[in-house]
Amino acid sequence: MSLGQLLKMLGLGAVALTLGVEWVNWLARRLRPWRGPQGPLKEVLFFPSPITCTEHLYSPDRTSPCLCPLPHGIDTSFSRLLEHLLSACVSLELCVFSFSHLELSRAVLLLHGRGLAVRVLTDRDYMSITGSQIGALRRAGICVRHELSKVVHMHHKFALVDGRKLITGSLNWTATAVQSNKENVIVTEEPELVQPYRDEFSRLWEANDPANHNHHLPSSTATKGWHQ
Amino acid sequence: MSLGQLLKMLGLGAVALTLGVEWVNWLARRLRPWRGPQGPLKEVLFFPSPITCTEHLYSPDRTSPCLCPLPHGIDTSFSRLLEHLLSACVSLELCVFSFSHLELSRAVLLLHGRGLAVRVLTDRDYMSITGSQIGALRRAGICVRHELSKVVHMHHKFALVDGRKLITGSLNWTATAVQSNKENVIVTEEPELVQPYRDEFSRLWEANDPANHNHHLPSSTATKGWHQ
Repeated sequence: MSLGQLLKMLGLGAVALTLGVEWVNWLARRLRPWRGPQGPLKEVLFFPSPITCTEHLYSPDRTSPCLCPLPHGIDTSFSRLLEHLLSACVSLELCVFSFSHLELSRAVLLLHGRGLAVRVLTDRDYMSITGSQIGALRRAGICVRHELSKVVHMHHKFALVDGRKLITGSLNWTATAVQSNKENVIVTEEPELVQPYRDEFSRLWEANDPANHNHHLPSSTATKGWHQ
Repeated sequence: MSLGQLLKMLGLGAVALTLGVEWVNWLARRLRPWRGPQGPLKEVLFFPSPITCTEHLYSPDRTSPCLCPLPHGIDTSFSRLLEHLLSACVSLELCVFSFSHLELSRAVLLLHGRGLAVRVLTDRDYMSITGSQIGALRRAGICVRHELSKVVHMHHKFALVDGRKLITGSLNWTATAVQSNKENVIVTEEPELVQPYRDEFSRLWEANDPANHNHHLPSSTATKGWHQ
């Protein structure tokens, strides 16, 4: 075989290999729907969750290992919930009946400290019960509103991460719910599910703007509704 | 067969496969409208819901119009919830913290009366509170179990219709939740969401089988756990 023929063969081989790889990739992409469901994130978490160390989630780049006595390096429902929450880059909208969980409060404060737009909507009666973290959030400068009506409960338990990831379920943000109760949480980026919750948050946020209700309420109550 | 013929055959085979896959994909796209415009059902319902007449949902074939004073012919979150529930043909699994809503109880009793396999799992403390419908369900012969632990709550609020439609959210099955509170419910047939809830129901149903726990409990308590 002459050098010319060898070069020609090598060149044709390279082209054939390139086209072949491209074709196999194309085939894999086209066949994907038959291989199973893909598409937006859909995750279900059940509780109670074991208590494990979640320090690494608050500061992923820390180099020294945590020395606390809790189990380390274990994925739990709670660590997944925390991870999803801490994945926020732009905003967090939180619509939760009862909020007393210290670690979840720490996560929300951390996101606020990073400069994210954090808004919290909660129930009126659960604003100031023992252990409620709402006061701590407000003192840190986070926008908080509560259901203004005295007779109905704001019983939602959902969060919107960057406006595109929905976290929703039966779980109140309390230690009892996380560690003891039988609870469920759906985490999804399915637009058909996320959008209605975005609309609901906007609607409730506006409806519970105390500025629009001052004339209906005694001044002390109206002030309670102000954020910060 | 010469190398040339082999290459020609491989080339023709690749072209045929490419065209074939494209054609099947095209066919799948064209047939999609018959399977549902957006894939599996995903619906979000928000509460409170206005009170309207829902008589037609219990007996769709009745010919005489309802004469009750409530508004008629209006779709509400509650009527949608009821419709989804009454769409059951085979089975209903219900896992709900608190159940006192009369119309929802009527729907569950109706499904039981039609011969569907109905199973209800509920919280221990909410079995016999005022207005609870759990007693009525048990008296009708429906299988009911409750969380056996004295210290944790079964706080789920979900239902599985025919094992393939999931109804889940913040909504307890009470009149206050339906008519007053701010609540949310997701209704979906998305298998990735439905399957985990099916597994959770099976797990909790078995875990709360009083037959497995009789020796741990006083007889009166153990008996409470039996269905019917």
